[in-house]
Amino acid sequence: MERIRVSTGSRQCLEDITAQVSDAVRRSGVEDGVCHLFVSHTTAGLVINENADPAVARDLLEKLEALAPSDARYHHTEGNAHAHIKSSLVGQSAVAPVAGGRLALGRWQAVFFAEFDGPREREVAVTVVSAGRAEAPAEVLSRERQANP
Amino acid sequence: MERIRVSTGSRQCLEDITAQVSDAVRRSGVEDGVCHLFVSHTTAGLVINENADPAVARDLLEKLEALAPSDARYHHTEGNAHAHIKSSLVGQSAVAPVAGGRLALGRWQAVFFAEFDGPREREVAVTVVSAGRAEAPAEVLSRERQANP
Amino acid sequence: MERIRVSTGSRQCLEDITAQVSDAVRRSGVEDGVCHLFVSHTTAGLVINENADPAVARDLLEKLEALAPSDARYHHTEGNAHAHIKSSLVGQSAVAPVAGGRLALGRWQAVFFAEFDGPREREVAVTVVSAGRAEAPAEVLSRERQANP
Repeated sequence: MERIRVSTGSRQCLEDITAQVSDAVRRSGVEDGVCHLFVSHTTAGLVINENADPAVARDLLEKLEALAPSDARYHHTEGNAHAHIKSSLVGQSAVAPVAGGRLALGRWQAVFFAEFDGPREREVAVTVVSAGRAEAPAEVLSRERQANP
Repeated sequence: MERIRVSTGSRQCLEDITAQVSDAVRRSGVEDGVCHLFVSHTTAGLVINENADPAVARDLLEKLEALAPSDARYHHTEGNAHAHIKSSLVGQSAVAPVAGGRLALGRWQAVFFAEFDGPREREVAVTVVSAGRAEAPAEVLSRERQANP
Repeated sequence: MERIRVSTGSRQCLEDITAQVSDAVRRSGVEDGVCHLFVSHTTAGLVINENADPAVARDLLEKLEALAPSDARYHHTEGNAHAHIKSSLVGQSAVAPVAGGRLALGRWQAVFFAEFDGPREREVAVTVVSAGRAEAPAEVLSRERQANP
């Protein structure tokens, strides 16, 4: 597992972390598999969406604010109840395929760190897992022994 | 990684892709692990829910439309801003267990491709990963050597 | 894959299952990787959020009830249409990293089983996967043979 550091710039924002995630995938040495991202915070999340037009991120943040307004009344009285809710609506984890040693996002996709209670120093855990059916060592040894008894 | 092709039939719909996903899991040869599904589009998503009564899918689509109406005003002016938002609300990935070589869904569960800006030709990436602690080859060899010095 | 049993106490509630998930991770023997949780029900979900203040869970449940009221009219007439929708909004799966043989949640994070149509006996599938690039057994054997021809 590797940790990516993210400095978020405002109270609520989507920070594009695609480049950092791509670098971590390359460093993992995994050729084919999946890249797991996990935010160990409860007032932030992860979103995969379009970054070509920044208006897409803006629309998403405004919609989340409409669904869970930051100035509404909540039982949790630390002022960030809305952020806990938004975190659960978008999720604290994201998974994307790894193919040919690279993060295999779609043409228009980017990975965003979703900050709902910033600005803060945040972290994202990156774990890359290999795909497929690992041939069990025992099978290989058995075949070896038959070939070279 | 394998790619499943989905032709969606209307602007917004849930297409049941369970059979195609199950076939891909069988072809992977993985006995126990997890099946990762990923949509590399930004105006579509993946949903696991009931397919016995088609009204469940209809209720979900209508609720998403109520939360992010397709005819509301957004900053993103391509007419599909609502679809980007819905995509982030349901998510572009899904994960289900694989047990005994098969996709281990619950009795009432089906995998749906969630189209929010169709009809289109879409793709879903399927990556199947083996579970558990791979016994390190070195441990096996060490045991082998002790047994057959 | 291991199955955790959860007895939910009321119609809609968040049950903290962190201890049971942590135990399953330890039993898996995986040192570094990811822990996959999957709910094979269509009227329940999984949430990772704060458990220090129970008001956070209460706020989330109330917000979901506001977004998809249990007493509204739906096409699905079994009385649990709202639960199917909530299940898709929070998701039926969750993934968290495993590091040093332990579930690597953040300081304030807990794993909650989200019941939307209880009380019931429920199950959560836990599958733990090892991270990284598995060294192919063939490579190990080849090195072995060079060292001990």
